[in-house]
Amino acid sequence: MSVYDKLKQLDIVLPPLTAPVAAFVPFVRTGNLLFLSGHLAKRAGKPWVGQLGVQITTADGKQAARNAAIDLIGTLHAAAGNLDTVSRIVKLMILVNSAPGYTEQHLVANGASELLVEVFGDAGAHARTSYGVAQIPFGSCVEIDLIAEVK
Amino acid sequence: MSVYDKLKQLDIVLPPLTAPVAAFVPFVRTGNLLFLSGHLAKRAGKPWVGQLGVQITTADGKQAARNAAIDLIGTLHAAAGNLDTVSRIVKLMILVNSAPGYTEQHLVANGASELLVEVFGDAGAHARTSYGVAQIPFGSCVEIDLIAEVK
Amino acid sequence: MSVYDKLKQLDIVLPPLTAPVAAFVPFVRTGNLLFLSGHLAKRAGKPWVGQLGVQITTADGKQAARNAAIDLIGTLHAAAGNLDTVSRIVKLMILVNSAPGYTEQHLVANGASELLVEVFGDAGAHARTSYGVAQIPFGSCVEIDLIAEVK
Repeated sequence: MSVYDKLKQLDIVLPPLTAPVAAFVPFVRTGNLLFLSGHLAKRAGKPWVGQLGVQITTADGKQAARNAAIDLIGTLHAAAGNLDTVSRIVKLMILVNSAPGYTEQHLVANGASELLVEVFGDAGAHARTSYGVAQIPFGSCVEIDLIAEVK
Repeated sequence: MSVYDKLKQLDIVLPPLTAPVAAFVPFVRTGNLLFLSGHLAKRAGKPWVGQLGVQITTADGKQAARNAAIDLIGTLHAAAGNLDTVSRIVKLMILVNSAPGYTEQHLVANGASELLVEVFGDAGAHARTSYGVAQIPFGSCVEIDLIAEVK
Repeated sequence: MSVYDKLKQLDIVLPPLTAPVAAFVPFVRTGNLLFLSGHLAKRAGKPWVGQLGVQITTADGKQAARNAAIDLIGTLHAAAGNLDTVSRIVKLMILVNSAPGYTEQHLVANGASELLVEVFGDAGAHARTSYGVAQIPFGSCVEIDLIAEVK
């Protein structure tokens, strides 16, 4: 099944490529690798603000990570031209805006990991590192960057 | 000397590959590069819990980083098939669970860096980034990910 | 225009390659990629100490990020032999030592991003991830690592 069929089946509409807010670009290709910039979790088009362990629950954080992953897939679509040429999601770095005592970053991260496996199948199985950070630009609760391999 | 001889000389027994606790994999190979997932520091098979500058001393943190590096070598063995085909440890990211005033993350990180040089010799000399994070999954004191090059 | 002419025009003198303070190296080359270690922001040769949102303003943090970028360019010069062979700045990770409520990491990061575009032109347009960390070695206010592609 094409990645686009799978997205349709999941009722996921990819966003247009967001213009970067500063002197950088959403992705760079080098050889067969695509390096994507950190994508902030958004809700209704705006940064999803808050800290895990304070205003944001693990369940909401997981949804926020899923939202960021949808935006990453949108950027991958723009970068690769065709998502069916993405041969592997290589690595995710998942940053969780965390209060001092909050230790469930891996559960939040699953929101992104599970979606990528749903959408890309075996090619979506990735290495990842998730952890709690002190803050994220605009106060977002989650930020994710990604490395992918294209054919 | 083979990497395995060196490990034996250091009395290091590699752990079996740990099954991932979520929707991701311990490593991904792309071209000649291996990207390993973040590995939590463990003690007696469980996450080594605590924060540097609170319950964990720099000396213990260094030992925790060394423990995580042993697990990373175990994953490299599973990924490469044969550790003697690892041509370079390219990059380490070393995350230290840090209280606000704790600034010795580089000393903690040396626990991993020194072991990799001991085990792999010149091929073990790596670039690295170490810093203090707000939290780590399961409350671990150290988390490390790694990029390696294989022949 | 050569990268060196551009640096001269900007009155930037590259520092000599700093000896690493621990068991790692300033950069590793694998294939056409250079992975540079995390570089601490310095002022007058010493770590620029402080936290954004406490002692360090966004404007000073931006200058600190620019300083770290100059040191990264110095390391790139040592790594590539000739900066004009750098075909692309691929990815930056920009760590900002942040007080809990500080959310302008992206503005701090621009200090590095803008300089790289000034110096390398189109080849300087990079992917990046910036966020707030709990601490940085030696208490530095900013730390940056970088991946570049060489011809």
